[in-house]
Amino acid sequence: MNLDELFNVNSVCLVGASREEGKVGNVVLKNLKKNFKGEIILVHPVADEIEGIRCHKSIDSIPHPVDLGVVSLPSVKALEAVSELAEKGCKICIPVAGGFGEQGEEGKKLEEKMREISDRSGTRIIGPNCVGVIIPRIGLNTALTSGDKSEFPSDGPIGFVSQSGALGLLAMDEFTDSGIRFSSFVSLGNEIDVDETEMVRALERDGQTKSIALYLEKISEIDEFLKACRSASEKKGIVVLKGGQTESGNRATSLHTGSLLKTSFSLRGIFRQNGIIQASNEIELIDFAWALSSAKPVRGRKVAVVSSAGGVGVIATDILEMQGFKVNRTSDQLAGKIKSMISQIGSPFNPIDMTAEATNIQYENVIREIDKSGEFDSILAFVLFQTFGVTEDIIDFLDRFNRTSSVPIVVGMIGGQYSREIFRKMTQRGIPVFPSIHRAVGALSALYERGEFLRRFER
Amino acid sequence: MNLDELFNVNSVCLVGASREEGKVGNVVLKNLKKNFKGEIILVHPVADEIEGIRCHKSIDSIPHPVDLGVVSLPSVKALEAVSELAEKGCKICIPVAGGFGEQGEEGKKLEEKMREISDRSGTRIIGPNCVGVIIPRIGLNTALTSGDKSEFPSDGPIGFVSQSGALGLLAMDEFTDSGIRFSSFVSLGNEIDVDETEMVRALERDGQTKSIALYLEKISEIDEFLKACRSASEKKGIVVLKGGQTESGNRATSLHTGSLLKTSFSLRGIFRQNGIIQASNEIELIDFAWALSSAKPVRGRKVAVVSSAGGVGVIATDILEMQGFKVNRTSDQLAGKIKSMISQIGSPFNPIDMTAEATNIQYENVIREIDKSGEFDSILAFVLFQTFGVTEDIIDFLDRFNRTSSVPIVVGMIGGQYSREIFRKMTQRGIPVFPSIHRAVGALSALYERGEFLRRFER
Repeated sequence: MNLDELFNVNSVCLVGASREEGKVGNVVLKNLKKNFKGEIILVHPVADEIEGIRCHKSIDSIPHPVDLGVVSLPSVKALEAVSELAEKGCKICIPVAGGFGEQGEEGKKLEEKMREISDRSGTRIIGPNCVGVIIPRIGLNTALTSGDKSEFPSDGPIGFVSQSGALGLLAMDEFTDSGIRFSSFVSLGNEIDVDETEMVRALERDGQTKSIALYLEKISEIDEFLKACRSASEKKGIVVLKGGQTESGNRATSLHTGSLLKTSFSLRGIFRQNGIIQASNEIELIDFAWALSSAKPVRGRKVAVVSSAGGVGVIATDILEMQGFKVNRTSDQLAGKIKSMISQIGSPFNPIDMTAEATNIQYENVIREIDKSGEFDSILAFVLFQTFGVTEDIIDFLDRFNRTSSVPIVVGMIGGQYSREIFRKMTQRGIPVFPSIHRAVGALSALYERGEFLRRFER
Repeated sequence: MNLDELFNVNSVCLVGASREEGKVGNVVLKNLKKNFKGEIILVHPVADEIEGIRCHKSIDSIPHPVDLGVVSLPSVKALEAVSELAEKGCKICIPVAGGFGEQGEEGKKLEEKMREISDRSGTRIIGPNCVGVIIPRIGLNTALTSGDKSEFPSDGPIGFVSQSGALGLLAMDEFTDSGIRFSSFVSLGNEIDVDETEMVRALERDGQTKSIALYLEKISEIDEFLKACRSASEKKGIVVLKGGQTESGNRATSLHTGSLLKTSFSLRGIFRQNGIIQASNEIELIDFAWALSSAKPVRGRKVAVVSSAGGVGVIATDILEMQGFKVNRTSDQLAGKIKSMISQIGSPFNPIDMTAEATNIQYENVIREIDKSGEFDSILAFVLFQTFGVTEDIIDFLDRFNRTSSVPIVVGMIGGQYSREIFRKMTQRGIPVFPSIHRAVGALSALYERGEFLRRFER
């Protein structure tokens, strides 16, 4: 069956629901109930209802078809449930419990049997030993974390695939809080059927996904994976965080997800050739994916830096130049125009320092003038809201400029609660904004790498 | 006069207060009023009162002595006011306005005259062309940012000195929001009297300052500065972010703070020899200072990584090993002990993965066991609150352990609003906690550099 059905699930059957607070079967049920827009069906051998939802005694006794089966039962029982769900024509099954291949030979045999069920029936299986999926557009959440302790993300452009359920959920929680939105989160677990390659293909086809972020510890079939990325990356940005690149890290992945990847070759080079941008930590993974989905690719190294704080311009310039960008001086003509627009004590050369006297209209005028000049390949604008002249009214302009300008823009911010609230409004509007100097520069680097990759197809 | 008086200011005289919303003289007054615990005296030629505070017609007519004079007047008038304040025996003067050396020859002459006043009278001058100072312990704030848009920091261990007022205020705002506390913030401006070297000496003497963070674009007398740092660093950690290290960055600093520093020599080496730890952006600057003031120095490269999320342990291990740390395997004996303490599906080897089943008591037991074993030089513990078994009750243990253990600990967290609230509680308690994997590892690197430096004195 088609994995794409995941984005359109209308009914979920939970096998192994529990009424006991804190138990996996209870946590999953509460998370499912909280936002899911479709029907929830429970299966329980004795209970009549749990959390206000009627229970069926068996899978067999459910009178209608089921799109998705979530199985929260220990390994042997999970296998039985998956088998029954498959017989019923269930499209996708997610066994969330562990106790399979990661536990040794017995578990591997169970996995083999589960794989056979999938092959025979066509039911797709995500997992086992995973936290499952989150599909914001339909409110689907099969995860195990406490819903009271983390936020449910809004529908958005980033497709997130992780070989560590916990790492994925932690990163989602952090970025959801700053307004970053996701088309999907898929925890792959032991990958007896659906793997990273197939998820890349499914996310390539999904219209709402604009960039793909993957946390990977193993890559089952590297050639197939690269081929899938190569194809997807013609349309969408792909970012990979590869866990286990050092000797001790690799030892750790073998204990965590049960497999080793020999990385004697240079991953970075192979990744780059296939349109994959490498992240070095969980923040870069989502930052880069956000940049790739919200900003235009950058086609050259010349950056105009605009700021209302001289020191911010200086540090941004240092970091940019250290990463191979050029913060070259504005032409006399452009400098003259900018000089007439900003405070007398500001600097119209690059980095452009509008000083604390900067206003929304100054930001707008300067940014537009840079765009018109054609002197730069991108604009890095630090919009700092702590002064009097800059207000959130500037969001409209930044949104419009980001969508219509000829030069790509990345916005940087620094600050506490007041800033963070505006930050969230910006991400919700789809503005490529980042909360520190080096993270803003990092985003620009990812956009430059994307621009370089796309250039190949234009020759 | 002694610069140390800055920490004990009892009365502030503001010359140039304004009742007009948004004007510098009004913003400064409001910020002064908001938290200052001493007396505020206003001088205004015509107004009887502003913002409810009675005004004196002239400095001369103030009937009692004044500790600190804040002068918010344009250059020529600022010079007059500073002269009168000095005559009155004012201990420290802060002319906040620009229009001096950074504006050319005329301004330089004014600076020369102001310096003469300082030399003759002994009145210390911070600035001009600066946002002044923030001293949380006495509620003093002479800064220009809107108090509604940024938070006032609490008293704490970090002494922060900046040659960019805006950059400093932005970073303060961000870190104050996450509960990081400061003993002082000083914006140096044009440094006609008080400079970075003298501030290092003053902060060395200040009992409440445990680490010193400096954002520098120029270093007036490099030998003196290094000598001061060398002395202070025997007792306190020092972190420097040097703006203008690249060619374009250096061009930018010459426009921003009006001076060039030739950096043909390796700053990093010279800094390191004198106990200065280098930061490469505003986040590292304060992160490192926070680490140095809240955690013990790290005396070796062997790190135990503890986590309840396998992927987090894997990435931490990769980053640590890439930075020269060793995440070596636990001994069989230690592994055996840890295995009996954690979930059956966890891993007792290093990185130690307690899985999502981790509880407060498991964290405590494992961390204590690592300390006892003597196998590691530091512990990097990712305490992830999104699961059921981990609650904020663990803060007590972490606080106690941080103060009493033989092995230094650094705590990492990842997450949204719920996590951030607990994060704030931890920083308020003085726990060295950092909000991402690479920032936690960065903190550990700074602590290791500090440990290496201190080792010299122990031989």
